[in-house]
Amino acid sequence: MNISQEERDALYKVIFSRRDVRRDFLPDPIPEEVLERILRAGHHAPSVGFMQPWDFVLVQDSETKKAIKAGFEAANEESAQQFTGERQEQYRSFKLEGIMESPIGICVTCDRSRTGPVVLGRTIKPEMDLFSAVCAVQNIWLAARAENIGMGWVSIIHDDVLRSTLGIPEEIDIIGYLCLGYVSKFKDKPELESFGWLPRESLEERIHKERW
Amino acid sequence: MNISQEERDALYKVIFSRRDVRRDFLPDPIPEEVLERILRAGHHAPSVGFMQPWDFVLVQDSETKKAIKAGFEAANEESAQQFTGERQEQYRSFKLEGIMESPIGICVTCDRSRTGPVVLGRTIKPEMDLFSAVCAVQNIWLAARAENIGMGWVSIIHDDVLRSTLGIPEEIDIIGYLCLGYVSKFKDKPELESFGWLPRESLEERIHKERW
Repeated sequence: MNISQEERDALYKVIFSRRDVRRDFLPDPIPEEVLERILRAGHHAPSVGFMQPWDFVLVQDSETKKAIKAGFEAANEESAQQFTGERQEQYRSFKLEGIMESPIGICVTCDRSRTGPVVLGRTIKPEMDLFSAVCAVQNIWLAARAENIGMGWVSIIHDDVLRSTLGIPEEIDIIGYLCLGYVSKFKDKPELESFGWLPRESLEERIHKERW
Repeated sequence: MNISQEERDALYKVIFSRRDVRRDFLPDPIPEEVLERILRAGHHAPSVGFMQPWDFVLVQDSETKKAIKAGFEAANEESAQQFTGERQEQYRSFKLEGIMESPIGICVTCDRSRTGPVVLGRTIKPEMDLFSAVCAVQNIWLAARAENIGMGWVSIIHDDVLRSTLGIPEEIDIIGYLCLGYVSKFKDKPELESFGWLPRESLEERIHKERW
């Protein structure tokens, strides 16, 4: 199947305009069929040995969100204390999640024992199954952007909080908690770049020819 | 920036027609500007705390490829022995890489100490930097597909082989080795599905509402 130049440009437009969204969420619900398209994009991520190790736990209930938000707040306070001086002040000024404002939360997990103990392609590099589930997250992120839906990945929360709040079994690994919703706007640049936290690296300096 | 319905459909077309390519590579070179677009897509992946921890080592030299291929062969023999009976026979019948046939190899790495020891968003979940580099791989994969270029992720090789062959420093983590090239065709389905190794999971069974 050939991809046309217009289609190629559309892919790049989605990739370059994707943002980690923490504010500007609108309360508008995400229609069932839109959510289903986004999840299907995740489900068609590459997976090592075609094991498709992911699951998606969808969160809409505000009591559940409150428990997750409380988990974020505790972890965020713990995190702030790892920074010092001006850097800590700046850290505390950032809004780093949109758990309550976004209509849908998705916890993405990885079942490392799915399809049995020996997995084609995971025999040498055991983390390949986790990496497959991360590819599903990135597909979900891009599909959401293509639906004009913002997404933020909440990583400042202990796995145990998500596990107990969502009833995720001990043997299942937690990859991340994603917040999705329509937004009033997508920013031109990552917030951490705009706010001077870190600059965009030069691509040229990240490319090595033949050897590091 | 709004994404139109045509652009959205293009993104889904790319996601659903992406394949892990191990055969059908053509020797046609990838033009410099095409490769640059693909790598820029990788460079615009999300990254925890905007740390952009990835590097890309580009391999074109056939002597280098030979060393990597030898590393694959040893690891593949080791892997085959983890399967038994018919399953082992089937495993041995698969072509699992296109290292020599694809014109470009890309080793994607993760520099976990880039931007210092404390990284915003990695304070609680230390693997977030590795996950960021995996998002770069998935962006590269989709960008390649949008350029009608096939890509395969070679995971059946020890990190040490890539490290010594490509001169990658000890403190840099290796994420994966990717093979890229134009192809005579993209298959309709993943090979492991077509060959009956594993079926496509039902998406519905992977979705949990409110709780696992």
